Amino acid sequence: MTASRLEPADLASSALRSRGVAAARGDTAFDRLITGGTVVDMVTGERRLADVGLVGPLIASVHAPGTRTDAAEVIDASGLYLSPGLIDMHMHIESSMVTPAVYADAVVPRGVTTIVWDPHEFGNVLGMKGVEWALDAAVDLPLRVVMLAPSCVPSAPGLELGGADFDDKIIADLLANPAVGGIAEMMNMRGVIEGDARMHAIVQAGLASGKPVFGHARGLVGRDLNAFMTAGVSSDHELTSAEDLLAKLRAGLAIEMRGSHDHLLPEFVQALNALGHLPQTVTLCTDDVFPDDLSAGGGLDDVVRRLVRYGLPAEWALRAATLNAAQRLGRSDLGLIAAGRRADIVMFEDLKQFQARHVIVNGEPVALEGRLIKQATALPVAALTSTMKIAPLAADDFRIASTAGKVKVATIDRPRFTQWGERETEVRDGFVVPPDDATLIAVAHRHGLADSRPRVGFLTGWGQWRGAFATTVSHDSHNLTVFGSNPEDMAIAANALIEAGGGMVVVSQSAIDALLPLPLAGLVSDAPLSDVAHEFQAVRAAMDRIVTWQPPYLVFKACFGATLACNVGPHQTDRGIADVLTGRLLESPVVEEL
Amino acid sequence: MTASRLEPADLASSALRSRGVAAARGDTAFDRLITGGTVVDMVTGERRLADVGLVGPLIASVHAPGTRTDAAEVIDASGLYLSPGLIDMHMHIESSMVTPAVYADAVVPRGVTTIVWDPHEFGNVLGMKGVEWALDAAVDLPLRVVMLAPSCVPSAPGLELGGADFDDKIIADLLANPAVGGIAEMMNMRGVIEGDARMHAIVQAGLASGKPVFGHARGLVGRDLNAFMTAGVSSDHELTSAEDLLAKLRAGLAIEMRGSHDHLLPEFVQALNALGHLPQTVTLCTDDVFPDDLSAGGGLDDVVRRLVRYGLPAEWALRAATLNAAQRLGRSDLGLIAAGRRADIVMFEDLKQFQARHVIVNGEPVALEGRLIKQATALPVAALTSTMKIAPLAADDFRIASTAGKVKVATIDRPRFTQWGERETEVRDGFVVPPDDATLIAVAHRHGLADSRPRVGFLTGWGQWRGAFATTVSHDSHNLTVFGSNPEDMAIAANALIEAGGGMVVVSQSAIDALLPLPLAGLVSDAPLSDVAHEFQAVRAAMDRIVTWQPPYLVFKACFGATLACNVGPHQTDRGIADVLTGRLLESPVVEEL
Repeated sequence: MTASRLEPADLASSALRSRGVAAARGDTAFDRLITGGTVVDMVTGERRLADVGLVGPLIASVHAPGTRTDAAEVIDASGLYLSPGLIDMHMHIESSMVTPAVYADAVVPRGVTTIVWDPHEFGNVLGMKGVEWALDAAVDLPLRVVMLAPSCVPSAPGLELGGADFDDKIIADLLANPAVGGIAEMMNMRGVIEGDARMHAIVQAGLASGKPVFGHARGLVGRDLNAFMTAGVSSDHELTSAEDLLAKLRAGLAIEMRGSHDHLLPEFVQALNALGHLPQTVTLCTDDVFPDDLSAGGGLDDVVRRLVRYGLPAEWALRAATLNAAQRLGRSDLGLIAAGRRADIVMFEDLKQFQARHVIVNGEPVALEGRLIKQATALPVAALTSTMKIAPLAADDFRIASTAGKVKVATIDRPRFTQWGERETEVRDGFVVPPDDATLIAVAHRHGLADSRPRVGFLTGWGQWRGAFATTVSHDSHNLTVFGSNPEDMAIAANALIEAGGGMVVVSQSAIDALLPLPLAGLVSDAPLSDVAHEFQAVRAAMDRIVTWQPPYLVFKACFGATLACNVGPHQTDRGIADVLTGRLLESPVVEEL
Repeated sequence: MTASRLEPADLASSALRSRGVAAARGDTAFDRLITGGTVVDMVTGERRLADVGLVGPLIASVHAPGTRTDAAEVIDASGLYLSPGLIDMHMHIESSMVTPAVYADAVVPRGVTTIVWDPHEFGNVLGMKGVEWALDAAVDLPLRVVMLAPSCVPSAPGLELGGADFDDKIIADLLANPAVGGIAEMMNMRGVIEGDARMHAIVQAGLASGKPVFGHARGLVGRDLNAFMTAGVSSDHELTSAEDLLAKLRAGLAIEMRGSHDHLLPEFVQALNALGHLPQTVTLCTDDVFPDDLSAGGGLDDVVRRLVRYGLPAEWALRAATLNAAQRLGRSDLGLIAAGRRADIVMFEDLKQFQARHVIVNGEPVALEGRLIKQATALPVAALTSTMKIAPLAADDFRIASTAGKVKVATIDRPRFTQWGERETEVRDGFVVPPDDATLIAVAHRHGLADSRPRVGFLTGWGQWRGAFATTVSHDSHNLTVFGSNPEDMAIAANALIEAGGGMVVVSQSAIDALLPLPLAGLVSDAPLSDVAHEFQAVRAAMDRIVTWQPPYLVFKACFGATLACNVGPHQTDRGIADVLTGRLLESPVVEEL
């Protein structure tokens, strides 16, 4: 495992500092000089004209415009705003279904220079091999990657089987790597609050390392929130309302304000504006960005853009994305355009659209006019392939056999905030007839266990389906998950993905309508972003034809979280229907023969 | 050398966290419960009623008033304001002329729970023995001490001789100690800016350690300031005006806003209020507090009190003294009353006078109603005594011999902002007659070199003296420094201090008017604060009788900085008259025989 070449140790170089000091004094020329720009001051909130001199990766001087002209290279920033590079405080590259090199190509030209990546999707599928690949892939990017140790692999131990199991010893090993900045979103909230031995040991590994334990404190209030924080978890990005934001700020959590739930941003902005100042504990993150959204809107730059559109002062949005983030990460080299800090600088055309014209990382121009100057080196992907360890399936695999005449079955009611339900239904030709209002869900283990027979359940509240959808992006164990109205289409969909090495497919009337192959871990494509975005949009469109969505909860995105067994309520997994609160696990939905 | 028992590792205890989580959940009782108080929220700036549950050194719960009553001990905070403990970001205990235990006794009951101590006075006199004593003395205090490695021992290498010489290797050794939080105020600004090998190596030791290099950036602007910061220095407390404050904030320096220059605070407050928000890079410090001021006014609490009196919002002053300081120190356990953080809590009667009623450190009540509950353990002081390594002096030692009839002598003009001057004067009976308007200054090495003959010089602009003042508190080498109108009184004063083991003495008409013995390193007394304050005030009063002061520069305090050879301009040292900018060193002020 290698450390990222972007770690702060490089700035401790004696030769670099001597060279920087000589240039600052005026005894030698700068390597690069940015002239004519307006620095957006993250400390005072002011905008002021200033030129910036760089020596290697170091900012060596911020000075009055025009007072220095001696530099090997001059970058004309006339009319542009200079901001520190944006820092995305919590994200999963896998959610964008592209490789790290492709992701960097998408966001660096937009001004995102640092991401805090929780590679827990790769971890769930490939274990340490996946995390090591992620670490290696980050080394030669023009994007700084602070890697986190995935806290919840698997997310619901005992209720599902994924591709790996990260205990506290593995976490401690990861934390010993200087490229790893902490423990990623602690999603097993109940485990932490209730003092479950496994989760306790993992949090303790974080505390022992001195690195932060990042949180996922969805819906926590009162005693639960106090217990979660007392354990040692120190942040949240799962905000559900402005009230929740204020409660979490008051509690003293660091906030990773998330762009992936756009509908909440206007009320967040209103609440912060009403507070009258931007708390220094507010940072920003994207969490999950689908490839078409990444292609069209961008990464963290789009969160900044939307916050400003909704009324947050531009200086506040940038401060959250830069100085506040750097302080939270303990990175005194980042987050400020100041002498002695690292030269990660973005030059925006304006502070509304945030169109980035120049992007400098580590003192090197890496993007110009929205494009990388030099493509990022892509790491070979062989280590990530061949993860569909499952034989082809038949339609009957998606049926539930029974010898009774009539049965009572458990159902999983409502998308997103699930609850247990029950229906009585007939048995015909030896198989349970799905209840009229039910959508079938089946999850088949795909990580190499002998028992990869799908576990089938019934969803209600998912509308009327006309076909099938299969996906290997299925949080968090990413087993082969199939939704549908009939077993025949479901089998076709499942087999298409087994053939493709993973991905997403929509089947309607026995034919494949749209297919997005994701052969890397069943999560990611190594195709260019435009191709992935295009194919993903085709899948979205095909899904619109077989399901009538009902926002905000019955939406396409809900398909990827239907198996997230660490969440409260029943969820289908490769082992059956699981309920994390009660520990209940039903291999079959048949609860009674009538 | 031992690490402080107050280091953050204790909060990583598995048993402690489990116990805290159980109490937060409500399954077990708190150790302590603070009820009825109003929490001043350092994040949102709000004041809100909340109770706080403690388990060991940990805050386990911050919850709605009255919702929990189960605790081994309840602390009634009705009507009181709860703030995190105050953090003094830069100070020298030696300046208060008392031991660390006495200092803790003075400030902890007032709400100061953490100090960032630069023991460079002990270092200059006693070398590593002094710093090790300081580290040991800090271990059992009710006051958390973040120790810093003194950067400039001696402050002006080659121009003076102190009791020690800390090169980069010694600094690196100190930084390897977890109780040491960084490199203390880098005062040798020219050395850093000009890339002097010694100072460069010391700053590099700081960068290599990953700990901050704190600064002293007095008067730096433009290229000098950029060079100083590019070298790796990241803070300043030497602000000279509101304009300077704003310039340093814009430059991106962390600010340790200093209470010891009270006359500047009103304009600082005005500048920050005009900015409309408190930058997160603003922290507070005392730097130097004389014993009588400490006794009457307090420590960092008095800086907070005065800032609020001058119009800074109370929440801002407290945030600078708590959350901002903790962030600057990289101490995520401090600075906030929040579950999972360290229980350093002060309960103030109001947010104007900041009278502290209860003070809790590490979860333990340590002070009540302005008094320590349990006296701090004082460390034996034998290691600090016998530092007057110099034989008694005679009046002729304070005269300058010459065989000429008339001479031209160099003078040191103006207190504080010194400059070179010249006078012609007679020689009578083999000795130079001091110019009419001159005050004599003599500095005698007292750290054990054979050559401890006083070097004598002439000050002008120091008014008319009527006697002599001797002090072994004389920055930074703390040699025996004597001021006076005549050699006879100067010899009496010097010998009184040699006899007392160091201190301060005022002699008038051949008699001792006031004497403050400081037998520990010649800097500190082991007497109670009230005694030291009383004797120091007697010295102040006696000085008022022999000198007519002219504020703001010709003041009593100027006597202690008259030998600070790292400052720009000529300064008398034990080697002669030294000028750091030119490197000039005159053993005798006689520049020409006429």
